[in-house]
Amino acid sequence: MAQAVRFQPQGELAHSVPVDLGKVRQPHYGRYLEEFAPGQVFVHPRGFTFFPAQMEGFARTYMQCNPLYLNEEYARASGFAGLVASPQMVFNVVLSLGVQNDSEKAMANLGYYDAQYLRPVHAHDTIRALTKVVDRKERGAGKPGIVTIRTLGINQRDEVVLQYQRKIMVAGQGDRPPTTPLPRAEGGQMPSFPWVEDAQVFLPDFPARLPVGLSGPASCFEDFSVGEIIVHANGRTITDEHLALTYAVGNTHPLHFDRVFSSGLSGKMSGDPIVYGGLVFAWLEGLASRDVSDNSVWELGFTEGYHTQPSIGGDTVAALSRVLAKEDASGPLGAQFGVVTFQLVGVKNITAASALARHGADLFIKENDKKDLGKEKIDEKIFEIERRLLIRKRS
Amino acid sequence: MAQAVRFQPQGELAHSVPVDLGKVRQPHYGRYLEEFAPGQVFVHPRGFTFFPAQMEGFARTYMQCNPLYLNEEYARASGFAGLVASPQMVFNVVLSLGVQNDSEKAMANLGYYDAQYLRPVHAHDTIRALTKVVDRKERGAGKPGIVTIRTLGINQRDEVVLQYQRKIMVAGQGDRPPTTPLPRAEGGQMPSFPWVEDAQVFLPDFPARLPVGLSGPASCFEDFSVGEIIVHANGRTITDEHLALTYAVGNTHPLHFDRVFSSGLSGKMSGDPIVYGGLVFAWLEGLASRDVSDNSVWELGFTEGYHTQPSIGGDTVAALSRVLAKEDASGPLGAQFGVVTFQLVGVKNITAASALARHGADLFIKENDKKDLGKEKIDEKIFEIERRLLIRKRS
Amino acid sequence: MAQAVRFQPQGELAHSVPVDLGKVRQPHYGRYLEEFAPGQVFVHPRGFTFFPAQMEGFARTYMQCNPLYLNEEYARASGFAGLVASPQMVFNVVLSLGVQNDSEKAMANLGYYDAQYLRPVHAHDTIRALTKVVDRKERGAGKPGIVTIRTLGINQRDEVVLQYQRKIMVAGQGDRPPTTPLPRAEGGQMPSFPWVEDAQVFLPDFPARLPVGLSGPASCFEDFSVGEIIVHANGRTITDEHLALTYAVGNTHPLHFDRVFSSGLSGKMSGDPIVYGGLVFAWLEGLASRDVSDNSVWELGFTEGYHTQPSIGGDTVAALSRVLAKEDASGPLGAQFGVVTFQLVGVKNITAASALARHGADLFIKENDKKDLGKEKIDEKIFEIERRLLIRKRS
Repeated sequence: MAQAVRFQPQGELAHSVPVDLGKVRQPHYGRYLEEFAPGQVFVHPRGFTFFPAQMEGFARTYMQCNPLYLNEEYARASGFAGLVASPQMVFNVVLSLGVQNDSEKAMANLGYYDAQYLRPVHAHDTIRALTKVVDRKERGAGKPGIVTIRTLGINQRDEVVLQYQRKIMVAGQGDRPPTTPLPRAEGGQMPSFPWVEDAQVFLPDFPARLPVGLSGPASCFEDFSVGEIIVHANGRTITDEHLALTYAVGNTHPLHFDRVFSSGLSGKMSGDPIVYGGLVFAWLEGLASRDVSDNSVWELGFTEGYHTQPSIGGDTVAALSRVLAKEDASGPLGAQFGVVTFQLVGVKNITAASALARHGADLFIKENDKKDLGKEKIDEKIFEIERRLLIRKRS
Repeated sequence: MAQAVRFQPQGELAHSVPVDLGKVRQPHYGRYLEEFAPGQVFVHPRGFTFFPAQMEGFARTYMQCNPLYLNEEYARASGFAGLVASPQMVFNVVLSLGVQNDSEKAMANLGYYDAQYLRPVHAHDTIRALTKVVDRKERGAGKPGIVTIRTLGINQRDEVVLQYQRKIMVAGQGDRPPTTPLPRAEGGQMPSFPWVEDAQVFLPDFPARLPVGLSGPASCFEDFSVGEIIVHANGRTITDEHLALTYAVGNTHPLHFDRVFSSGLSGKMSGDPIVYGGLVFAWLEGLASRDVSDNSVWELGFTEGYHTQPSIGGDTVAALSRVLAKEDASGPLGAQFGVVTFQLVGVKNITAASALARHGADLFIKENDKKDLGKEKIDEKIFEIERRLLIRKRS
Repeated sequence: MAQAVRFQPQGELAHSVPVDLGKVRQPHYGRYLEEFAPGQVFVHPRGFTFFPAQMEGFARTYMQCNPLYLNEEYARASGFAGLVASPQMVFNVVLSLGVQNDSEKAMANLGYYDAQYLRPVHAHDTIRALTKVVDRKERGAGKPGIVTIRTLGINQRDEVVLQYQRKIMVAGQGDRPPTTPLPRAEGGQMPSFPWVEDAQVFLPDFPARLPVGLSGPASCFEDFSVGEIIVHANGRTITDEHLALTYAVGNTHPLHFDRVFSSGLSGKMSGDPIVYGGLVFAWLEGLASRDVSDNSVWELGFTEGYHTQPSIGGDTVAALSRVLAKEDASGPLGAQFGVVTFQLVGVKNITAASALARHGADLFIKENDKKDLGKEKIDEKIFEIERRLLIRKRS
């Protein structure tokens, strides 16, 4: 820290620089359909340093109950190097880092697939994100197309902490000016994109005796049985807080925080800013957490995730979980842990119990399959996903 | 950090697991009247690590002015090991940690008694909470009963940082299913509950010369006289922020953040989510702070605390303090410090000055005593408590 | 940490202390016109420790995109000692620390002038503030006067990090009681006030190769041309969050968070709480940041800053920048950096593009000059300022 520099005093200049309305530039971000091409790799700007208070703040905002994200002593006693960032926070941040490039012009997020958490994120880790275009499907002139992308979250040691795939609906460029410049391929090469096939998960050496008393008494591996439906008692009313929370995770899409923009849209999305889907997912996961995940030691990942209706400020969201599978963890982990797969369903402006009473089994059928089955979509249903956790056995 | 584990790829499962509406489970938390028994000790889940930004954030949200909670240099220069967590934050967190077990089914918090802050909480301390049932009073079939509980906040060195008692109004179970499983007494023994009778307070060795210039000029021990009424000028409008703030301190009661739940209630509590009382107390204390507590070096505690009316988002709260007693601290501390007891009264949707003009001395009579005195309760009054502080003398 | 002290148990006292309505005190803060005198120096209470999560939180709340404020690794790789506090945060905090004394009774903030950022603020730095009265202009009986003050932000090593001047409109005292006690001049001397004339800026030794890939591709020094107008695409709807954010930076003026106070005013400011201008400035700067400042390594400062219309919760703000000047940095810095001066203009409840289409060149004329030019003020325009940045050249 060592140079002292003297700059000219700052004088007032505006009146002496004529306004030239011929020199207007309006930078745009995101991409139109034509601006995606399979094989492209984007390095996303900014990155995100995880400070412990932000980690704890995220877990508390979204009502997560696993003490790994809230209690540093507990995390250490469980074998981790310190407080663990909620995987849901890692997902929200990694996705959001890519929005400015990938989806700030997108019309909809169509689905999340094959998300895998490969390593813990701890305090003071810095995560950056990369995206690769996997597929672009055009659906005819004037129609938006579908782009499939893969995204990686990478820490400061160049280790992948998360990888997932998503599909987005993107409008054609038409006569609009181009947006974000295409990535420059150094020497004709795109940046490397270290997606891991058949990935390993890097876990701590768990102690023989995990801490007791600070996680729920009824959410161990033995407490779940395949097929059971767990109705999570409490809901959460989403307030206008969601505008700030969108950018708190780095998401730059104006649909979520710019009412002039959102109310200027036509159709279903017109009106108040729409809650960024990652936040909805986070609240639903949090509402479920004390019943299903506060004895988990790892989120393995999720797939087939769909936001089936948008939410706005004022909506109250609630959640149900259904146990899809359970099995011992393989190898030595099996003595202490099992793997449980849950279907997580979100509803809004109705209690989870009432939603189950009203819609029964239909709640758990994917909304995209309803048409083929001759069933109506459920307006009160906002989200569906399958998630897989590594959960403690009762000690 | 050392094991790499390969899990099976996650495939879609929901369609292959038939939905069985006969296997529904709805976990409930909190307890009904019959589920409390004197002598029970509950170890509360999760715990809470105090990170400095959360400590500062709490103090700023609730408008606390004592630099001990805002300025690390000042705290060190005052003899503390570092930034001090606001005792009000410690209280809010310790109470909230117990809500899931103690009061998530409670109908009302009736009062706070005999709260004693025994040790500072500093950055990176982790606090857990325990509760013991002291008394259960039934009031006849169909009527809610009154449960008296004591709660401890304990740090990672097993030292008690806070102890207090409260009374809650709890409905009978009726034909509802049981809630949180009863604690298992190991070997027939409840967990130990180290409530401290005739407690000592652990304070730093204060320097001979405390820092000057960063705390208010008119809130030293000498500035207060017994009987005086201090009208705090500013109010604070509570916004919908309170929904998130409830869970930020760990409180899981849906009355405070679930509009489907709160609007489904009947009677006085029906409608918008009610502001969690701990937050109201915190704002009132903060509004008073620059006039009464920014030269305090310790909050000794409080008693006879009552929320006399609920608040909701949109309400503006304001505060008055009345000096009930002052005396030199005993022993060597007396040269630098005195003990001042204040009555703190909160009002809403009126300025503190107008409330005093309108209600006069009645503002300072406990609402529960009004009936016997033939007086009307004051609708605009929301809170009353007596608090005791250790305050610097002018140096 | 070493003394154990036993205090008397706290008993209930309120009923035994008669209420004396003759002993009422209402402390007031801020100053009326007569309470300012040129030459006075005020040492502001409290101070503010910058924790990294608050630094990151500020940058995210206000949508700032420069990775120096968001990514610790990037900041270090750029030559800084660690994460950098956004200069905008430093400005907001330093101004706010002075509000309780300088402007809690002020009717309006008239302008910001000659702000100079002299040193970085890093995590765990503690900033305090001092203000000196430079001028007091009376405008006749019954009229508010104009006070010119200079304020310094000083770190724990007694180094000036920020200095600026502002003008405020202040009402006369009339028959109101006095407010904050005047500062006591020790030995007849006011505290020293180390404003730096012809100041040097203390910058790190920048590495020969700055980090690439994490800041925007089109905001390097070469990308700007004098005279061009940059329309920033996104707006931000300000929610009731602004009430809490005001005190989060330490501002104590009730106009911003007390609806009973704000709705009791007469005239233009009556109604909902007004957004504290510092926050508006911060959002506008943030909305501009990915287009103009995410490749800056230093904010040199700003001048001629005016809030030309107030904003309230629910307003959506948007921004435009105009390039007023650019030149190479002098000396060895010039190889890597240039200095760019921007005019930043804010509008509300209209997109920046529509505001430009509707008002053209008039948007960039200072509102205070409009009358002399025979032009109408623009209701939709909320802010104007000139700011100067040190920006990377393309490497």
